[in-house]
Amino acid sequence: MTAFDTALDPEVEELRDRVRAFVRDEAIPAERELLATGAEPTEELRRRLQRSAASAGLLSPTAPTRWGGLGLSMSAQAVILMEAGYGLLGPLALNCAAPDEGNMHLMNRVATPEQRERYLAPLVGGAVRSCFAMTEPSPGVGSDPSMLSTSAHRDGDAWVINGRKWYITGADGAAWTICMARTPEHGDSPAGATMFLVDADNPGMRIVRHIDSLDKGFVGGHCEVVFDDCRVAPDAVLGEVGRGFAYAQVRLAPARLTHCMRWLGLARRAQDMALDRAAEREAFGSRLSELGMVQQMLADSEIDLAASRTLIAHTAWLMDRGERASAESSVAKTFVAEAVGRIVDRAVQIHGALGISHDLPLSLFLREVRPFRIYDGASEVHRMSIARRAVRRRAADRAAQ
Amino acid sequence: MTAFDTALDPEVEELRDRVRAFVRDEAIPAERELLATGAEPTEELRRRLQRSAASAGLLSPTAPTRWGGLGLSMSAQAVILMEAGYGLLGPLALNCAAPDEGNMHLMNRVATPEQRERYLAPLVGGAVRSCFAMTEPSPGVGSDPSMLSTSAHRDGDAWVINGRKWYITGADGAAWTICMARTPEHGDSPAGATMFLVDADNPGMRIVRHIDSLDKGFVGGHCEVVFDDCRVAPDAVLGEVGRGFAYAQVRLAPARLTHCMRWLGLARRAQDMALDRAAEREAFGSRLSELGMVQQMLADSEIDLAASRTLIAHTAWLMDRGERASAESSVAKTFVAEAVGRIVDRAVQIHGALGISHDLPLSLFLREVRPFRIYDGASEVHRMSIARRAVRRRAADRAAQ
Amino acid sequence: MTAFDTALDPEVEELRDRVRAFVRDEAIPAERELLATGAEPTEELRRRLQRSAASAGLLSPTAPTRWGGLGLSMSAQAVILMEAGYGLLGPLALNCAAPDEGNMHLMNRVATPEQRERYLAPLVGGAVRSCFAMTEPSPGVGSDPSMLSTSAHRDGDAWVINGRKWYITGADGAAWTICMARTPEHGDSPAGATMFLVDADNPGMRIVRHIDSLDKGFVGGHCEVVFDDCRVAPDAVLGEVGRGFAYAQVRLAPARLTHCMRWLGLARRAQDMALDRAAEREAFGSRLSELGMVQQMLADSEIDLAASRTLIAHTAWLMDRGERASAESSVAKTFVAEAVGRIVDRAVQIHGALGISHDLPLSLFLREVRPFRIYDGASEVHRMSIARRAVRRRAADRAAQ
Amino acid sequence: MTAFDTALDPEVEELRDRVRAFVRDEAIPAERELLATGAEPTEELRRRLQRSAASAGLLSPTAPTRWGGLGLSMSAQAVILMEAGYGLLGPLALNCAAPDEGNMHLMNRVATPEQRERYLAPLVGGAVRSCFAMTEPSPGVGSDPSMLSTSAHRDGDAWVINGRKWYITGADGAAWTICMARTPEHGDSPAGATMFLVDADNPGMRIVRHIDSLDKGFVGGHCEVVFDDCRVAPDAVLGEVGRGFAYAQVRLAPARLTHCMRWLGLARRAQDMALDRAAEREAFGSRLSELGMVQQMLADSEIDLAASRTLIAHTAWLMDRGERASAESSVAKTFVAEAVGRIVDRAVQIHGALGISHDLPLSLFLREVRPFRIYDGASEVHRMSIARRAVRRRAADRAAQ
Repeated sequence: MTAFDTALDPEVEELRDRVRAFVRDEAIPAERELLATGAEPTEELRRRLQRSAASAGLLSPTAPTRWGGLGLSMSAQAVILMEAGYGLLGPLALNCAAPDEGNMHLMNRVATPEQRERYLAPLVGGAVRSCFAMTEPSPGVGSDPSMLSTSAHRDGDAWVINGRKWYITGADGAAWTICMARTPEHGDSPAGATMFLVDADNPGMRIVRHIDSLDKGFVGGHCEVVFDDCRVAPDAVLGEVGRGFAYAQVRLAPARLTHCMRWLGLARRAQDMALDRAAEREAFGSRLSELGMVQQMLADSEIDLAASRTLIAHTAWLMDRGERASAESSVAKTFVAEAVGRIVDRAVQIHGALGISHDLPLSLFLREVRPFRIYDGASEVHRMSIARRAVRRRAADRAAQ
Repeated sequence: MTAFDTALDPEVEELRDRVRAFVRDEAIPAERELLATGAEPTEELRRRLQRSAASAGLLSPTAPTRWGGLGLSMSAQAVILMEAGYGLLGPLALNCAAPDEGNMHLMNRVATPEQRERYLAPLVGGAVRSCFAMTEPSPGVGSDPSMLSTSAHRDGDAWVINGRKWYITGADGAAWTICMARTPEHGDSPAGATMFLVDADNPGMRIVRHIDSLDKGFVGGHCEVVFDDCRVAPDAVLGEVGRGFAYAQVRLAPARLTHCMRWLGLARRAQDMALDRAAEREAFGSRLSELGMVQQMLADSEIDLAASRTLIAHTAWLMDRGERASAESSVAKTFVAEAVGRIVDRAVQIHGALGISHDLPLSLFLREVRPFRIYDGASEVHRMSIARRAVRRRAADRAAQ
Repeated sequence: MTAFDTALDPEVEELRDRVRAFVRDEAIPAERELLATGAEPTEELRRRLQRSAASAGLLSPTAPTRWGGLGLSMSAQAVILMEAGYGLLGPLALNCAAPDEGNMHLMNRVATPEQRERYLAPLVGGAVRSCFAMTEPSPGVGSDPSMLSTSAHRDGDAWVINGRKWYITGADGAAWTICMARTPEHGDSPAGATMFLVDADNPGMRIVRHIDSLDKGFVGGHCEVVFDDCRVAPDAVLGEVGRGFAYAQVRLAPARLTHCMRWLGLARRAQDMALDRAAEREAFGSRLSELGMVQQMLADSEIDLAASRTLIAHTAWLMDRGERASAESSVAKTFVAEAVGRIVDRAVQIHGALGISHDLPLSLFLREVRPFRIYDGASEVHRMSIARRAVRRRAADRAAQ
Repeated sequence: MTAFDTALDPEVEELRDRVRAFVRDEAIPAERELLATGAEPTEELRRRLQRSAASAGLLSPTAPTRWGGLGLSMSAQAVILMEAGYGLLGPLALNCAAPDEGNMHLMNRVATPEQRERYLAPLVGGAVRSCFAMTEPSPGVGSDPSMLSTSAHRDGDAWVINGRKWYITGADGAAWTICMARTPEHGDSPAGATMFLVDADNPGMRIVRHIDSLDKGFVGGHCEVVFDDCRVAPDAVLGEVGRGFAYAQVRLAPARLTHCMRWLGLARRAQDMALDRAAEREAFGSRLSELGMVQQMLADSEIDLAASRTLIAHTAWLMDRGERASAESSVAKTFVAEAVGRIVDRAVQIHGALGISHDLPLSLFLREVRPFRIYDGASEVHRMSIARRAVRRRAADRAAQ
């Protein structure tokens, strides 16, 4: 079973059709609420949608069956998450949205059995949400991991975390957070970064504000969070002390790929709207769809969709083979983040004034996808690492000749 | 005195410096209100800002001195409106924002002395606002003028207008509107379109809703307006019956150029923010401003700014020489609308997460400038007419050889 | 066995390694001849290279084993032709270059057993070359098939062809040509186009000139060919009378994909040269490979390569499943033709003056790949058909909902 | 008299018309020779064309009247050189092509009266050609001036130059060259670079080869030149010892602008050909000029032409005011070099196969303009300096507030 075959696997096909119907009937109608209020989806909306998805047997497609998920391969996720993403609220409804989806993956790979029982199971079941506290306000960590300034030190058995985190998506209302902090060398553990599981009721962690932002699509918003002598027990360490940066990669490579899948679904939606509009609207004596410049926009979006889809499929196939595929997921992320922006922008342009009005959700999509060129690694940072990898790979090839 | 010289004219230079100070001290601080509320600027804010500008002797730079404006040439407007546009609310404050600025120009060129006294004078003085009711919801007029569906017929001496208008900027609260309607052949007047001045209290005109939109920067919003047996007296006709399309061009060529000036000012602001950020923020061991990909973005924006500025200056110079310059203003509009979008987008990217947060106004700018590729003629429509003009010009050149 | 797996199939892998060595040792050294003379590869060079390839068991990888080829699937061709294309003369050496490779495919699908014996077998074996006479000088057929002006009429049993063909690649020295001509309704055959096999010694066919051209990489050049009462026997008809346009599609969909494979190989070569240069050359105090703008170019080329590769792999996989995949091959062709141009252009830029000198073959590559955006369907024509297909597909999807 | 006015100055207008006629009647017909031979223009062709131009009173428009030139301002040069550049051989014919034109400017600014008499006068009169020996093969000087490796040392009164120069345009047949060499501190002279005038018959200077290159448009080709204990007298120093880098800037800022003017002329020619083709050729049931994607290409080229023209005009105007305008000329060079490439590329695309054939000179233009993104400062190097200048300017502006 490989990437392209996956879409033709009858089980995946059947699941895809059910997701499609669910998104059409439940997730897309709920978008109007977002448009009307201009605010983030509420916790209440999340619960309602996730209950529906659970009833339909569609909850948590990326999570292992052991914890209540559908246990899909990455190749199958490519099919299903793209379908979920066709609605802005589809991934939330199916409980496969960021940051929870990435956290499920990370917890499954790194957490102890007890941590999984306590944190992962309720997350997969939709009982709670979580968040991932990594980025910091300037001059802290953004694109460059070496700038991590939040730190943790031991105090007896416990760890004490101090620092300020920023743009922590979903923090408000999350039951727990994974906090990344710099830790000193200690016993066998090297100096480096460590991930800690922090419960929402820990008095040392405070959400100090919602950061108002161009995008509004995430429950719990983007928050600024202060860790002020935040004390956690030894079993709050996720994985091993000092290996936080490595785990960040474990989380990130698939997480950025699932982001690609979801946003590509939304781009496909925008393109479908553009195709509909072009087929219906007339100007200058013909259907828009027969005007060359509109055809060029439509075709460029088809090309962007096709290239995005195959880059995702190939990377997913590698991951299913057990490879980390960080080079490939970095290429896919860079291309897809930019392609998605172009596709939505063209759909807006084809709709004219209607495209920027809230009579349609297109301008909302425009706002939601713009930040994807920044998070999960800014395009520039990916390009730097893509180039460096290519130079190294070529040098190795030449040495091997 | 020509385009480039104008910037060096001591009087223009002095005025520019005063506008710069005013924008810095009054207009930019007021932006925070917009960011905080996420809503359109209020009528109260407009009045406050315009009172300040009037005190500073800066009100209505584009309007003739005869009616209380500063009477600037187009070349001088290029300098001053770019400076005003440095603040999102600068043009509103100086009473040189759309749609009023374009209406002032049109009224000055086409209205009768009585109409100017009644409508233009209070507009220039900031006592009232106006609007321009042209575009219609699908399948009515958008980019293609031939699709105008609102119509007016004579009933005795009076005219009766029927139709639906859409995306009428500033309609809510405007004291009067210029409504474009299809009119039949009548006496000496050819069949075509006619412009009518309609007072806000005319019972036949109704604002049926605010169209929620990606951009929020215009007082009075974007409205949907219904004309339902809207009866106006013969002296409501602006200019001559049947010449509406020609007047639309009279209004549009300079109006789209002043739009370019204003938005280019905002783009310059975004670039200044990007330059500041690049000079201050460090990553990967150096200032952002020393990283090649950041330099590339900064340089591309410098190039876009320079090309925009010179295209505007050249077109303004032609207009000051008495030419219509519709070819040149079409080229300038197409280039500048796209360049402005690129410049603001790069500034967002250079700021990373901060760029999409409302801690800065950059993502607000992103939303405000996006529609400019659609209004005042969509880029595609301009390209069509630019190409056709070029083909005709070349054919004429060859015939002349 | 699917697309991505194919590269890992041990037999394909082994073949790829042998092709790689052959290209490195035989095809690439022969490029210097082209650079030195500035002329097309000679027939003598072709024979020498193909003899070498035959000795190495590498001749005619795309042709059926029945006729002496290697009988590779499209997915395997994607691997092997990309490797062959790493050298500008690699595809010629392996006898899988245009136009012969497309002709082999077409003959295998459409020709009678006798025609295959007489025309296909010697072509596969490298004894002769062939050509494909379709395009015509203005106002004849170029991008728009309906403009075909060459025609054939019956005269007794025989057919008589009249017309002028243009840019017929490889015509000079080809043993036979496939000529496309308009034919009238006749018996059961509909009016349309018909393909004819014309021997080189037919006195009715004349090569009137070599068209000097930006690209020089094809043996036999690009020729202008006149058919002047060119009389052929009934068995010269390829396939059925009146079905020429359908056969052109049979030939084109895979032929344009193999073109993509070959040119992508050359683009990979250009990128390897750019990577080497960036790793070695210093400027402004660091290796080029550590300068951000160079990294951006290298990364953009990596992304272009990856997207091209996966689009080709996906399309090949569909074809191996028996689908025509014309939508997909059209998308792939459009993207790859443009991507290849960008990649080579960036490699030139990274090399500076060296890149445009003939000390390296890069500027030769630049010339060879430019026309690919024009032949096999100009990008604009593909975009038109991609858009139309998308509109139809979407309408069908909606109807099915 | 400023930039835009200049075009309307009756004297400039009259001169432009005469240049236009000359280019049409003499320079363009001579292009066929280049196309036919595929080689550089010969010295004999140069002499013939320059004699014609001299008879027409058009020789050396950029040179001072004192030395026999037309003494045009930069603004007037913008008009006249763009007209000359409409033919590939126009600038050569008018003796305002690189590298001679830049050398005239430099000599006029820096040389002693004796040097001007001996070197400049015959150059302006067309009796001889010259060259400028700056760039070196790797790892020597290319984009980064600090990498200059050719050096000169004193031996008694004389200077002895050693080094290897590369891509020295026009070297073969030049009567003299300006050679740039590193010189040590000496007396009052700082360590740095010095320019030397070297006569062609100096036995220490040898042209070791013509570098075959993508572009072929320069008489004398691009040569590799070795300086091997090349001894020159003290009066061979151009300007002052140790100030070579400063003089390189004196030469470069206007020289790159005149390059822009000339190439923009050629781009305008390509666009005129595209407009003609689009107006004449039909496909898909209409004139190409009525197909949207063709209109888009034509319009984008019109926009590129307009922006290029105004950037050049603005920079020329600044230079005529006595400013160095290096920031502006750097922006103009970067934009124009890329715009010219796009314009010619679009013209090729619109012509289809005809565009890449030598039946038209378009693909020759494509080859000639490509290197302009590399010489006179590669686009990347300009972007680096544009960004740095912008950062510094902004910092200064803030400090001044």
